[in-house]
Amino acid sequence: MADSGRVKEYEGYLAKGYEPDKDDLVCEYYLEPAKGITFEGACQRIASESSIGTWTDIGTMPQEMFDRLSPKVFSLDKKSGIVKIAYPKELFEEGNVAQIMSSVAGNVFGMSDVTNLKLLDIDFPADFIRHYHGPHYGIEGIRKLMKVYHRPLVGTIVKPKLGLDEEKHAKVAYEAWMGGCDIVKDDENLSSMGFNNFDKRVKLTLNAKRKAEKETGEKKAYLPNVTAPYNEMARRARHVVANGGEFIMVDVLTVGWSGLQSLRDLNLKAAFHGHRAGHAAFTRNPKHGISMLVIAKLCRLIGIDQLHVGGIVGKMYEGKEEVTAVGEEIESKVVSEDFARHRLQENWHSLKPMLAVCSGGLHPAKVQPLVHAMGRDIIIQAGGGIHGHPQGTIAGARAMRQAVDAEMLGVEAKDYAKSHFELAAALKKWKK
Amino acid sequence: MADSGRVKEYEGYLAKGYEPDKDDLVCEYYLEPAKGITFEGACQRIASESSIGTWTDIGTMPQEMFDRLSPKVFSLDKKSGIVKIAYPKELFEEGNVAQIMSSVAGNVFGMSDVTNLKLLDIDFPADFIRHYHGPHYGIEGIRKLMKVYHRPLVGTIVKPKLGLDEEKHAKVAYEAWMGGCDIVKDDENLSSMGFNNFDKRVKLTLNAKRKAEKETGEKKAYLPNVTAPYNEMARRARHVVANGGEFIMVDVLTVGWSGLQSLRDLNLKAAFHGHRAGHAAFTRNPKHGISMLVIAKLCRLIGIDQLHVGGIVGKMYEGKEEVTAVGEEIESKVVSEDFARHRLQENWHSLKPMLAVCSGGLHPAKVQPLVHAMGRDIIIQAGGGIHGHPQGTIAGARAMRQAVDAEMLGVEAKDYAKSHFELAAALKKWKK
Repeated sequence: MADSGRVKEYEGYLAKGYEPDKDDLVCEYYLEPAKGITFEGACQRIASESSIGTWTDIGTMPQEMFDRLSPKVFSLDKKSGIVKIAYPKELFEEGNVAQIMSSVAGNVFGMSDVTNLKLLDIDFPADFIRHYHGPHYGIEGIRKLMKVYHRPLVGTIVKPKLGLDEEKHAKVAYEAWMGGCDIVKDDENLSSMGFNNFDKRVKLTLNAKRKAEKETGEKKAYLPNVTAPYNEMARRARHVVANGGEFIMVDVLTVGWSGLQSLRDLNLKAAFHGHRAGHAAFTRNPKHGISMLVIAKLCRLIGIDQLHVGGIVGKMYEGKEEVTAVGEEIESKVVSEDFARHRLQENWHSLKPMLAVCSGGLHPAKVQPLVHAMGRDIIIQAGGGIHGHPQGTIAGARAMRQAVDAEMLGVEAKDYAKSHFELAAALKKWKK
Repeated sequence: MADSGRVKEYEGYLAKGYEPDKDDLVCEYYLEPAKGITFEGACQRIASESSIGTWTDIGTMPQEMFDRLSPKVFSLDKKSGIVKIAYPKELFEEGNVAQIMSSVAGNVFGMSDVTNLKLLDIDFPADFIRHYHGPHYGIEGIRKLMKVYHRPLVGTIVKPKLGLDEEKHAKVAYEAWMGGCDIVKDDENLSSMGFNNFDKRVKLTLNAKRKAEKETGEKKAYLPNVTAPYNEMARRARHVVANGGEFIMVDVLTVGWSGLQSLRDLNLKAAFHGHRAGHAAFTRNPKHGISMLVIAKLCRLIGIDQLHVGGIVGKMYEGKEEVTAVGEEIESKVVSEDFARHRLQENWHSLKPMLAVCSGGLHPAKVQPLVHAMGRDIIIQAGGGIHGHPQGTIAGARAMRQAVDAEMLGVEAKDYAKSHFELAAALKKWKK
C-alpha cells in the first residue's frame, strides 16, 4: 500500500481528561523513560507498541483505523511515574488471556525507550468479566465442601517436597490430617517422579484421606499437583477426579495461561488450587515487570478457586500492603480504586470470589498477625511449620489447629499453650 | 513421623570442588544475599528451596534421603555473585518443563533471604536432551523448505499489528512477498479478533501466498499466530496445516510451557516460529529474574524451529553480547562454557539447531551490522522497516532484499543504492 494520510508514530495517543467507559480495558503502569525520551513520549510509545503501532510511521495505517483503535493515555504523572492507558476492547480477543498479555504485557518491557516499566493493574471491561467462567467453587463453595464455615482452613504441604515415595507421602498426609489439618497438598515441584509416581501417589493418598475422614469425622482434602505438558496434565486431572479427588493443584505460571485456561474449561468436578511458583521473577522488582495483583486477577478470571498470595509474615519478601491489596481484590465483588496501593477499580459481576492461600514460612506463632491482616477467609498453609514440630507431623498439625482455635476464641497463643502442649512446643521452637 | 536423625536446614549443600557429571542438571545463578545473610548461607538456601528443603529442619527427611537427593553448591564466588549448583536428575520429571522451572526458577526468586537472584543458564543432563524432540525442521529443514540456502531469510510482520481485516491483511502480505520477502508473519497480539477472524485470515493469506509463489517463482511462507487457550490453539494449528500452511507462529511465553509442549507434540507437519512477547518482564534486569538464554534453550528442547532472540541494533534494549550468546547456543551442536557471558557448556546431541530470528526496529541500514554480529543463519525480520518505506510495502520489501543482496555481495548498502532506488529511499528515511 502506498503512502497516503499516514499516521505519525508516537503522536495522537495523549487524551488527558478522557474518562474510560465500561468497554475499555484500562492498564496502570509505572514507567521510567530512557535517557533522552520525555515522559509523555515514553507513555505514547508504550500505548503504541501494546496495541496498533510500531517504531516508525507506516503507510498501511489510515487515520480512520487509528481513531477507532488507538488506546488513550488519559492519566500521566511524571513525578510518580504512574500512567494509565485505556484500550478499546476490540484490541483484545476477549477469552484469550495469552493474547491480552502479549498485548499489554508483551514487547513493552523490552523497549529501549524505557528504563523500567511495571504493569501494576488491569481493569477489565464488563464484557470480558462476563465472558470468563471464574471460580467454580470460590470461597463459599470451598467452605461448603470442607464443612468449615467460620475459621481459617488449615493446610500443609507434604515435606520434604521431594524425596518421599508414594507410601511415605500418603503416611505423612495421613498424619497431618489426623493431627487436625483440613488440607494436604503436594509441593510445587512434585509432579510424577521416578521415586513417586503421580497415579500411585494419588490413589494411596486419597485412600489415606478417606481413612482420616472416617477416623476424625472431619472432611479432609488432598490437592495433587497435576503440573505437566497440557495433555498429560489433563489426563492427571481426570485421574484425580476418577479416584474421588475433589481438588486439583496446578503451578499456574510455569504451566502458563493457555494450558491453565483449557484445564479449567474441562469443567471437572473439582476445585482448583493455584500455586504461583516463579512469580517473583517478575513481580518482585517494584519498578519493572508485572504485579502479583495482575496475576491474581487473571487467575480469578480463568477460574482458580484458591490461590497463593503470600504469607506476609513468612519466608517470602512481600509485605502487608501488597498482600492485603491482592487478598481484597480476589475476595471482593466490587473493588474500588486505591491510589496508594496502585489498584484500579473492578466490578467482578457474577464471578465468584477466590480464596486466598497464605503460605511460606508460616508456623503457629504467625497465626495471629496473619489473621489480623487477612481476615478469616484464608487457608493458613504451613509445611516446615508443621512437619518441623519437635514431636513430628501429628503434633505439628495439632499445634497449628490449636493456634487457629486460640485466635478464634480471642485467646493469646501463649496462654492457650498452657493447656495445649503441642502448641507450647511449637512456640518454644519458633518464637515469631 | 517423629524426630530422629533430622537434617539441619541450610547446611550440607556446600560441595566446593565437586565436578558435576552428565546426570546432573547444573544451574548458574547470580545472587545477592539479603542483609544479615552470608553469601554461603544464601547459596544453600537457594539450593534447598529449589529442591528438597524448606525454611526449617523437619522430621520427615532422613539423612539417607538428603544424601541421595540434595543438590551440590560446587562453585560460588562472593565477589561476582556467581553460584553454580548441580542437581541430581532424579529431582526432575525429565519431559516436564513446567516442573523443571517450578523447581529451579520457582519460589527462589521470592525468598526474603535474597535481595536479587537471576537464573543465568541451565546445563541439562544428557538424558534430558535425548528425551525431548527438539526442532522438527531446524535451520537445515527451514532452508530446504524455503529453498534459500546461503543468505539470511527476509521476513516481515503485517503492520499495523492490529486493525486490518482479513482481506487487507492478505493484501499487505501479498505485497510483501511480491517485493521480495520470504516470510510474512502475524504480530504477537493478533489472534482471532472481531475485525479479523483467524480461520478466514489464514485461508485468504495462504491463497495470497500461493499466488505470490506462482508469480515470483520463489517459495514463500506465512506464519499465522495460533496463540490461544490450548484446545483452541491446537484447533487453529490443525486448521493451518489443513489449509496448506507449513508454518505456525506462537507466543511461547504468554502461552506457557505446558501448552507449548503439547502443541509441539501434536507432531503437525509444520515448522514452529516462536515469538517471545513478555520475556523482558523477567529477562531485562541483569540482577534478577531469568535470562533469555534459558528461555531460548527451553524452546530448542521443546522443539521450536525458529525463535526471536533480539535485534541487537533495533528498538529493543539488548546488546550484542547477550544476543550473540543466545544465537550461538541455539544454533550450535556443542556449546562451550563462556565465563564472560555466563553461559554453561551444553551438548545438544541429536537435537537440531534452531534458527535465530532478529526482529524489532530493523530496517535496511541495519542489515550489515546485524549480519556481521549474527552470521547468515538468521531471519531478518522488519515490520515498520518495510511497511514504513516512503513508497509503501512492495518497495519496502524490495529495499530490504536489496540490502541483504548487497551484504552477500560484499558491497556497501550506500553504493548498492546507487542502482537500486528502493534501497536509496529507505536509506534516506532511516539513517542507521
